[in-house]
Amino acid sequence: MIIDIHGHYTTAPKALETWRDRQIAGIANPAQMPRAAELCIGDDELRESIERNQLRLMRERGIDVTIFSPRASFMAHHIGDFQVSSTWAALCNELCYRVTRLFPRHFVPAAMLPQSPGVDPATCIPELVKCVEEYGNVAINLNPDPSGGHWTAPPLSDRHWYPIYEKMVEYDVPAMIHVSTSCNPSFHTTGAHYLNADTTAFMQCLTSDLFKDFPSLRFVIPHGGGAVPYHWGRFRGLAQALNKPLLDEHLLHNIFFDTCVYHQPGIDLLTRVIPIDNVLFASEMIGAVRGIDPETGYHFDDTKRYIDAADVAPDARRKIYETNARRVYPRLDAALEAEGL
Amino acid sequence: MIIDIHGHYTTAPKALETWRDRQIAGIANPAQMPRAAELCIGDDELRESIERNQLRLMRERGIDVTIFSPRASFMAHHIGDFQVSSTWAALCNELCYRVTRLFPRHFVPAAMLPQSPGVDPATCIPELVKCVEEYGNVAINLNPDPSGGHWTAPPLSDRHWYPIYEKMVEYDVPAMIHVSTSCNPSFHTTGAHYLNADTTAFMQCLTSDLFKDFPSLRFVIPHGGGAVPYHWGRFRGLAQALNKPLLDEHLLHNIFFDTCVYHQPGIDLLTRVIPIDNVLFASEMIGAVRGIDPETGYHFDDTKRYIDAADVAPDARRKIYETNARRVYPRLDAALEAEGL
Repeated sequence: MIIDIHGHYTTAPKALETWRDRQIAGIANPAQMPRAAELCIGDDELRESIERNQLRLMRERGIDVTIFSPRASFMAHHIGDFQVSSTWAALCNELCYRVTRLFPRHFVPAAMLPQSPGVDPATCIPELVKCVEEYGNVAINLNPDPSGGHWTAPPLSDRHWYPIYEKMVEYDVPAMIHVSTSCNPSFHTTGAHYLNADTTAFMQCLTSDLFKDFPSLRFVIPHGGGAVPYHWGRFRGLAQALNKPLLDEHLLHNIFFDTCVYHQPGIDLLTRVIPIDNVLFASEMIGAVRGIDPETGYHFDDTKRYIDAADVAPDARRKIYETNARRVYPRLDAALEAEGL
Repeated sequence: MIIDIHGHYTTAPKALETWRDRQIAGIANPAQMPRAAELCIGDDELRESIERNQLRLMRERGIDVTIFSPRASFMAHHIGDFQVSSTWAALCNELCYRVTRLFPRHFVPAAMLPQSPGVDPATCIPELVKCVEEYGNVAINLNPDPSGGHWTAPPLSDRHWYPIYEKMVEYDVPAMIHVSTSCNPSFHTTGAHYLNADTTAFMQCLTSDLFKDFPSLRFVIPHGGGAVPYHWGRFRGLAQALNKPLLDEHLLHNIFFDTCVYHQPGIDLLTRVIPIDNVLFASEMIGAVRGIDPETGYHFDDTKRYIDAADVAPDARRKIYETNARRVYPRLDAALEAEGL
């Protein structure tokens, strides 16, 4: 079985974006604020948006199951206040949940949180609880920078975030550390902000003792870990200079990297440098990079081709494709077993 | 000949830091502001600070020449106003110049600029002119984020920066794009902010047509290009999606990467992915990562060992070690020739 741990609902029916535009307009002019119930999308529309896109490509590429969360760039936690984020997160999570109910053998949900800049993350707990208990979400996406590129939140090691971590530990769900759209003109969203956030999050963990406080907390760092595996020697050296344990001991019980790296040399480096137990298959398809690589003739984000071509043993490949995901996401494992998978 | 294009004066005599501390105290209390002339460091002190450190290691490792600029983390352009930066940059550049005069066969200077957040970069021109014309500087260090991690400046593609670029083109000097200390608690300086800035700068160039306006402008992106080579497929795909030319054509006449990547797999990726003409040897020694790698028994920043072990042809290695640097830094080439090197 091949599990893609990083998929977003980037192909939702247009009505979702239209509703969001009305909501944003409603921030300035409350008379225009739409009610949640005004978003009407039928099951047929959901089904079509998936069958023609993600599911079609999963079948073409041989991917069986995708962990499916709301579109990352649309989370845009910097827009509006907590109430705006709360309504928006609830709608997006519900849509993803409905998709997973329509295709229970192919999609398993992960939740976005109603984060808002300067607001206590504890306010996200009710949505998290609902998504896990009622919707069967197996993970959350946690945005380390709800300001959208201004980086005004405390580091992930700060007690600010502990209410979320306590709930994650209670439910045994991991978090993918994933920012959203950059509203800072310095940072291109998918070409800089995403990768920077991955590197930043890793370093915030490295300089801290967060995982002493939460030994079972698990973070998945997407996009192949940003700059981290490429600079693994730098990080090992910095940890040593900071009198931290070796990275395997200090961080790798708790931090995992996905394989959203869109060329063969990058995947080769990732699988050479990072212990295989910490590498989880993902493509973020359909996502930031949708084109066909003229050098290979295949989609840049067809990461399965790179894993298949990488110099890893068959049992290591099976870990990357399936067993690591089942271990890091115990509720995914349970959901798959419930489907007989 | 082996040229290290990325060295900073991280070992300056303590008097420099003491003077800077007094200067910083003087921002709040002008009565305490020291005069520049109060910094007194003798040639013997300079000589010793180099011979015991950088020059010793250069000899041990077989590095002949280093492009030498003020300590990057100490630039701290976010501290004080333009006048503070201006005085500080002048002192630091003068010290580096004196070092290069003491060791003219081993060190060639590059200048920091007196940047200050929100201040027109044109204000840096007099220092740049002095450093090139009087001190023989062969390059500048340009900080794309003088705010120190708040990223309040326009992107490098903005006309804001054009006065600097016009002078660079006139003098035919490249800029290393190098941030300084992060004062944003989100970003560890050497573990996140430096790498993020490298990635950010590359993407700012990618999304723009800056090099159409300045076809001979040259940027060196340090620390192996941040996350860029590891995610080369992502960047190729994003360029394609943005209808930009292939990266070789779009950026690689103007952008170069150094080899400050502190483990063998990273250097192997860099030399596999990036055309050899765009890779310049560097170690940033003595810099962010000073320890000995327990996996190899050698210093993390002894990057010559990785280049020597990389799978590159002898003529490619010579480009990385010498001829690329002479081409990208024409004033370095002239300075070396003047020394008979």
